[in-house]
Amino acid sequence: MSGTENRQIILVEKPKGALTEAHFRSQIGEVPVPDDGQILVRTILLSLDAANRAWMDGATYRQQVMAGDVMHGYGMGEVVSSKSDKFAPGDIVDCEVGWQDYAVIKARRATKVIDHRPLKDLLSVFGIAGLTAHHGLMQVGQPKPGETVVVSGAAGSVGTLVGQIAKAVGCRVIGIAGGPEKCAWLVEDLGFDGTIDYKAGHLMRDLQAQCPDGIDVYFDNVGGPILEAALQTMNNKGRIVCCGAVSQYNTSELSSPRGIPGNMVIKRLRMEGFIAMDFPTHDAAAFADLSRWIKSGELKVIEDMIEGLENAPAGLIGLLAGENRGKRMIRVAPDPA
Amino acid sequence: MSGTENRQIILVEKPKGALTEAHFRSQIGEVPVPDDGQILVRTILLSLDAANRAWMDGATYRQQVMAGDVMHGYGMGEVVSSKSDKFAPGDIVDCEVGWQDYAVIKARRATKVIDHRPLKDLLSVFGIAGLTAHHGLMQVGQPKPGETVVVSGAAGSVGTLVGQIAKAVGCRVIGIAGGPEKCAWLVEDLGFDGTIDYKAGHLMRDLQAQCPDGIDVYFDNVGGPILEAALQTMNNKGRIVCCGAVSQYNTSELSSPRGIPGNMVIKRLRMEGFIAMDFPTHDAAAFADLSRWIKSGELKVIEDMIEGLENAPAGLIGLLAGENRGKRMIRVAPDPA
Repeated sequence: MSGTENRQIILVEKPKGALTEAHFRSQIGEVPVPDDGQILVRTILLSLDAANRAWMDGATYRQQVMAGDVMHGYGMGEVVSSKSDKFAPGDIVDCEVGWQDYAVIKARRATKVIDHRPLKDLLSVFGIAGLTAHHGLMQVGQPKPGETVVVSGAAGSVGTLVGQIAKAVGCRVIGIAGGPEKCAWLVEDLGFDGTIDYKAGHLMRDLQAQCPDGIDVYFDNVGGPILEAALQTMNNKGRIVCCGAVSQYNTSELSSPRGIPGNMVIKRLRMEGFIAMDFPTHDAAAFADLSRWIKSGELKVIEDMIEGLENAPAGLIGLLAGENRGKRMIRVAPDPA
Repeated sequence: MSGTENRQIILVEKPKGALTEAHFRSQIGEVPVPDDGQILVRTILLSLDAANRAWMDGATYRQQVMAGDVMHGYGMGEVVSSKSDKFAPGDIVDCEVGWQDYAVIKARRATKVIDHRPLKDLLSVFGIAGLTAHHGLMQVGQPKPGETVVVSGAAGSVGTLVGQIAKAVGCRVIGIAGGPEKCAWLVEDLGFDGTIDYKAGHLMRDLQAQCPDGIDVYFDNVGGPILEAALQTMNNKGRIVCCGAVSQYNTSELSSPRGIPGNMVIKRLRMEGFIAMDFPTHDAAAFADLSRWIKSGELKVIEDMIEGLENAPAGLIGLLAGENRGKRMIRVAPDPA
C-alpha cells in the first residue's frame, strides 16, 4: 500500500566547496506511477557514502547529480506495485531509490535481495561496504600473513571492515582516524594493533613510529596528505589500494600527493583503483568469509543508523566531516516483517 | 695489458637543479690493483641513462653518487687481471665500472657477458634497455591486441623499443617525443601509428586527437604534465607503467600529476613501478622475442654512440635534454676481437 505523499530532498545547487544544509531543500511530491517494465519502490533504508559527495562534482563511474534533482542515493525498499514480471509487491529490492519515500525504478535497475533480517546488514557487511573492503584488501592489496596493513578512514564503514579482515588473515594493522576517542575505540573494541590520529598534527612521525618495518599494503580511503605520507613509508613492492578520496570530495582545491611517479619507480609500487563491482566471481567467497568471521567473533559489524529521511543532509555532511563510526545509514521506514 | 694512466671523471658537487658540465672535472688517477676476490676491468663501453641523474639526488634502488666520487656508471669492460677464480684476463664483463678507464670490481659484482659482437647490443636491445622495455610493457602493461598504447620518451632507448614491441604484439602505438623531426622519424622509420610533439604546446588536445578511443596502456618515462594528461585520457581499467620520471630528475621542484587518487578510483586504473631486474624468470623469453623481431624486421635497434670518455658529461646532459635517439652510449675503447 502506498501513501499519498512523497517526501523528497532536492539538491538545490551543486556545492563549490564544502557541502552544507543550505544546498538541500525538502518538498512533498506526488507518488509516481510505474510504467511498463517499471516498479514502484517504497524506501526503507538509504546508504550514506562519501562517494555521494563526489557524484555532485561530475562524471565518476556513474551519472552525476544535477541541481534540482532529488538527491541520488543507493538504498533498499519494498516493491509497492509492479509492471514487471521480475517483481511482485512485497519483494525487497536494492536500487537507486534516491532521497525520497517513493521512486519508480526500471525493473532491470533493481535487484531482489536475499532473505535476511535485519535489512541493514545488507547495506553494510553483506552489501557494498563488505564487498568493497574484502575485494579491495584481498584482490587488490593481496596482503600476506605478517605484513603491515595501514588503512585510512579506519573508523568508517569500509575501514572498520578492512582492519578486521586484515587481522583475520594474519596481518599487523594500523588504522588512521580522526581524534583520540575513535583511535582508542579501534584498538580496544576492534583489535587494531595501533592507530594514528591524523588530527594530532605529526602524521609522518606517527606513521613511521607505528610502522617500524614499513607499510606493505596501504588501503586508501582519503587521498591527499595521508596518501603522501603513506607513499613515503611504503616498502618495496608495496601495494596501494585506491578506494576513495574523501579528503578531496568536499573541496574545490584538488591536490595530489608529491612523489609520483618517483616513488612508484624507486620502490616498484603498485597503486590500483577498484570498485566493489569489479570482482563479481569473488562475491560469494567474500560473503562466506565475512559470515564465518562474524560467527567466530573475529569481525564486529559496526553500523551507525540515523532515524528519519529529513536527517539525510545532516547525516551526509557529518559523514564527510568524519563523525560516523562504521556504516552510516538513514532509516526511512521500518523493516517489513 | 693495462696502461699506466687512468682517466677519471669526478662529480664535483651534487646538482641542485639542472646538471651542467661545471658539475664534473677530469683527473688522471692511478690504475688500481685488485685484491683477493677482485678483478681489474678496463672500460670498453659506458651506458648513459636518465637514471644516472636520479642517482645524484639520494637513495633510489641503489647507492647514491656523492660529491667527489668518480661518476657512477654501468658499462662493459675487459678483465685485465683477476684475483678471482670466476674470471680470467680477456673475459668481457658487465658491471659498474664508473666513468673511468680502469676499475677494481668485486668478482661477485661482475657478470660475464654472452659471446656476442658488437658489444654495444648488450647495452641496448640485449641488455637493460631491452629487458626494461619488454618486461615493462608485457609484464606490467599487459597490452592486448587492438589496444592503444602510448609511450613517452618515445625516441629514447626504452621508448623506441616499447613502441616497436607494442606494434609487434598488435597494438596501436602513439609516441610522445620532443620536436617535429623526432616525431616524423618515429612514424616513418619505426612504424609508430602516430606521435605527439609535447613541445608544440597543446599536449592534451593532441593526445585526445591521437587517441580517440582513449589510452589502454601508458608507458611513462617522464612523469609530470605528460603523466597528468595521460591520466585524464586513460580508459577504464587502463594500466600506467611507471618506468622513469625524467621530467623530475633534473630539477629541484618536484611536481605530481593532479587527479590522484581520484582518477585511479573512478577509472579503476592500475599504476605500477618496476625495474628490469624484477622479472628474472622472463628474461630468456624476452630476449628470444627481441631476437626474433629483429630477424623479422619488426624491430630496429637504434643506438646513439658517442666517442670518447671525455664526452660523457656532455652526453648525459644532452640525454637529459632529450637530444638522443635510441640508446646513448660512450665508446671508451674498441671492442676486443
